Amino acid sequence: MNRLSETKVKKLSNDHNTIIELESVVIGEGHFTVIAGPCALESEELAVKTAKAVEHSGAKVFRCSLFKPRTSPYTYQGYGIDGVSLLKLLHKETNLLLETEILSTDHLDALASEADILRVGSRNMDNYELLKAVGKTNKPVILKRNMSATLEEFLLAAEYILSVGNNKVILCERGIRTFETYTRNTLDILAVPALKELTHLPVIVDPSHSTGKSSLVPAASKAALAAGADGLMIEVHPDPLRSYSDGQQSLDIPTFEKLMKELSDMAVLLGKKSFSAVLS
Amino acid sequence: MNRLSETKVKKLSNDHNTIIELESVVIGEGHFTVIAGPCALESEELAVKTAKAVEHSGAKVFRCSLFKPRTSPYTYQGYGIDGVSLLKLLHKETNLLLETEILSTDHLDALASEADILRVGSRNMDNYELLKAVGKTNKPVILKRNMSATLEEFLLAAEYILSVGNNKVILCERGIRTFETYTRNTLDILAVPALKELTHLPVIVDPSHSTGKSSLVPAASKAALAAGADGLMIEVHPDPLRSYSDGQQSLDIPTFEKLMKELSDMAVLLGKKSFSAVLS
Amino acid sequence: MNRLSETKVKKLSNDHNTIIELESVVIGEGHFTVIAGPCALESEELAVKTAKAVEHSGAKVFRCSLFKPRTSPYTYQGYGIDGVSLLKLLHKETNLLLETEILSTDHLDALASEADILRVGSRNMDNYELLKAVGKTNKPVILKRNMSATLEEFLLAAEYILSVGNNKVILCERGIRTFETYTRNTLDILAVPALKELTHLPVIVDPSHSTGKSSLVPAASKAALAAGADGLMIEVHPDPLRSYSDGQQSLDIPTFEKLMKELSDMAVLLGKKSFSAVLS
Amino acid sequence: MNRLSETKVKKLSNDHNTIIELESVVIGEGHFTVIAGPCALESEELAVKTAKAVEHSGAKVFRCSLFKPRTSPYTYQGYGIDGVSLLKLLHKETNLLLETEILSTDHLDALASEADILRVGSRNMDNYELLKAVGKTNKPVILKRNMSATLEEFLLAAEYILSVGNNKVILCERGIRTFETYTRNTLDILAVPALKELTHLPVIVDPSHSTGKSSLVPAASKAALAAGADGLMIEVHPDPLRSYSDGQQSLDIPTFEKLMKELSDMAVLLGKKSFSAVLS
Repeated sequence: MNRLSETKVKKLSNDHNTIIELESVVIGEGHFTVIAGPCALESEELAVKTAKAVEHSGAKVFRCSLFKPRTSPYTYQGYGIDGVSLLKLLHKETNLLLETEILSTDHLDALASEADILRVGSRNMDNYELLKAVGKTNKPVILKRNMSATLEEFLLAAEYILSVGNNKVILCERGIRTFETYTRNTLDILAVPALKELTHLPVIVDPSHSTGKSSLVPAASKAALAAGADGLMIEVHPDPLRSYSDGQQSLDIPTFEKLMKELSDMAVLLGKKSFSAVLS
Repeated sequence: MNRLSETKVKKLSNDHNTIIELESVVIGEGHFTVIAGPCALESEELAVKTAKAVEHSGAKVFRCSLFKPRTSPYTYQGYGIDGVSLLKLLHKETNLLLETEILSTDHLDALASEADILRVGSRNMDNYELLKAVGKTNKPVILKRNMSATLEEFLLAAEYILSVGNNKVILCERGIRTFETYTRNTLDILAVPALKELTHLPVIVDPSHSTGKSSLVPAASKAALAAGADGLMIEVHPDPLRSYSDGQQSLDIPTFEKLMKELSDMAVLLGKKSFSAVLS
Repeated sequence: MNRLSETKVKKLSNDHNTIIELESVVIGEGHFTVIAGPCALESEELAVKTAKAVEHSGAKVFRCSLFKPRTSPYTYQGYGIDGVSLLKLLHKETNLLLETEILSTDHLDALASEADILRVGSRNMDNYELLKAVGKTNKPVILKRNMSATLEEFLLAAEYILSVGNNKVILCERGIRTFETYTRNTLDILAVPALKELTHLPVIVDPSHSTGKSSLVPAASKAALAAGADGLMIEVHPDPLRSYSDGQQSLDIPTFEKLMKELSDMAVLLGKKSFSAVLS
Repeated sequence: MNRLSETKVKKLSNDHNTIIELESVVIGEGHFTVIAGPCALESEELAVKTAKAVEHSGAKVFRCSLFKPRTSPYTYQGYGIDGVSLLKLLHKETNLLLETEILSTDHLDALASEADILRVGSRNMDNYELLKAVGKTNKPVILKRNMSATLEEFLLAAEYILSVGNNKVILCERGIRTFETYTRNTLDILAVPALKELTHLPVIVDPSHSTGKSSLVPAASKAALAAGADGLMIEVHPDPLRSYSDGQQSLDIPTFEKLMKELSDMAVLLGKKSFSAVLS
């Protein structure tokens, strides 16, 4: 990967690792952060209910997507930009940090004013105009790997954000496209240690989109922690089967709570300095 | 592919095929159209020189990309939006139709005012906000397949354009990402007859990006014609080795002229109603 | 592909291309050879009927597989080694050359005594013990590409045959495994010109296994010829829907005859010295 | 995966899981077994030295490959069948169980007489004649997934062994072929929980071939344990850089010992009934 040799994302030494601090949450080397929430927000009532359950289970960051980029124009497309008021409500009702996806520069001001962390989804990893605009907000950015991006391409996409002066980038492995169809994508678990040896940026894993099956999410989550990930982004829904989208890959609340307990025990054994729940 | 069953892209019968007419150029069923030009415009002089050579070889549409989305932020990014003046110059100096890539809604008005055909590149196939905006211009749109998109996903992306009332969409197969590394991508040649049986839209092939090697471009071009494609988009450069980008996959002018002659003969044998060159 | 630099498969010059002559059939540079027949032989009557139809359409080599390696042990496994008597019968009833798949060194003597061309299937491309044994028979060998083999691996597998002194190897591209599921495999059409520039061996294409859909076989066949292939191996069955295996990808006789006519015309235009049918 | 519905590999309930007992080693549900050794045996002295080090670190099964199927016929091909005397020596010098790869039915009697566990490698997963022959020995068989096999195809290959009456099959995930080249293959970590929910057979992981880089082997090993694997097969070599093959992916002895300690602690936390080392 010669092309990385002069980039800002390149890891120079182990004490050079990026750590992102946001109020009581620390993301990066030695810490383990769980981000959880529904695939896309569906209603005020459900959003608040899920957020409170997620907070109770120990997660510190709430996934709250207002837009849902869908393969077909005829399926549910999400709440839309009016949902910014929902972010305000969630800030009032909980102590969670809010994380949301940005699809277009047109929405950047509105979202950046309320969200604590911005997410650039897999489909937009190559949308370099968006990457530069998001970088300029100086907000922490979760950058999801495109399902057909090599690690080098993934890091060079991150470089678009760092090149405008924002190094608060969190890389998210979420599965790559392969011939296997039993899982929705193939979780490239070795991307985690590989990225940790190539770059100083935090690396998290999305076990929900990579598996596409809730029955496999706990195993994927534990594997990510064991492989050295700095956190997880997990889809949680109080009633997955009634979800407008991605229901089959969302955990219900009791399963999520059980998983959080198991992950917390593993995090201690593996010497993590903090686990989401421990900090509160 | 059940999800296509109620879409506007679905083929209903053979006489329902979309044909796009632009001055003397006809794109679609029974016609064969060659679009040619450099990977990205580099200078006024070179642009005019290449355009005239391309026109002389019989192509009717000039590829003139002002933006060059690059994996790394530190490589040549193209001419930029100021290059619109270059499009004006090319319209004055040649009779070619001009085709250009659109990367962002911010540039839409400027580009749509001069370009005859807009292109949405592979990296933006999933950029649904852009697809809808481009659709609303009512200009013909070349939609390139994302390198990891299934045919179904490709057609549903096209549906975003048709769903806003623009059915002048030309699908472009340009290679998919596989394990094989000898070629830059793997040209999915069977996407051509597959798309022709699934949809009424014209289907063209980009032999340059799919091969990544100029030595393979003639074979890829002939295979595309034989497989039923409605046209080609070929990278041509007067001096490929001095090109700022993609030089190794660009044809020089004499090789392009020879290929055009061979394709023209094949087009006659295969019963095409017109070949680019024949119309002039 | 440095590892090829000292191999016997490496192309040194254009006049170094291997040509295989078998009675009136010439396989290799400048000639175009069609091999056709059912996926697997099913009965004496059907075999003779299909062979005669195939011969009538101008093919000179009959695909007659006695074994059918199947993913599941509980599906039809083919005629078995007793079918050697069937090869004798076909030699008596027709003037076709017979081509058959070899699965195990245990069957080598029996098959080599009757078959004119031996085939090593995709699943056995890496079965190096079998490759060496087949090489030692000094019979022409069709080596099919494993569905996950790179071109370099494919050529090094061929090298196992050449390294024991047999250079009558015919390479067969038959589709690679990718994420796309509309076709059974993805026909890597550019493997044809790529292999032709890397090696002196003849290259043919199997349009049936690569597409998995009979509706796409004619387009795949023409694309292969246009891309420079030296021949085709096509599945043909008098009654595809009643076939024990692969019925959905087999051509019926009238479709095969029509395709042979079209291919013959293209072969003339493309300057082929002979087309199967022309030699009889 | 409908085709699995009537197979013997199908999981019926959790208490139906297969457990294989071999002297003091238990492979399967609830136990965790480490198999370790060099890629291929190179000399008597080195084999004994490595075996003793591996035994000292707590592994109970020694990987001792006499044959090394290589992509090129001109690279090191392994010790060959004469190495059976080496297996005898290793049985005398250590208490380890011996595991070895079988490439051809010709070697079956000699290998089955000395080895405790037979391995069918990735390249032979589709070699159905070999699978049936190996099944009939009634020895435990490690079946490695072909790098392009779906989970369904993998299980149907195992079915060839079970269908002849041998259900002592251990499935081994070893990475699949994808577009990513930073790792040698892409470890499909979710194959582990997926196979555990589909079948009653033990599932182990080969972290060495899947990563191709020794620096990633510890992370891959821990991820496999966390994902629910029943064991690991790890390449270990006293002097990896002088290894005839696969040196860059082999662990040296101190790194292997450190990993074994970490895995042992995790196994206790995850509730495993036994870890290799604990049983001795």
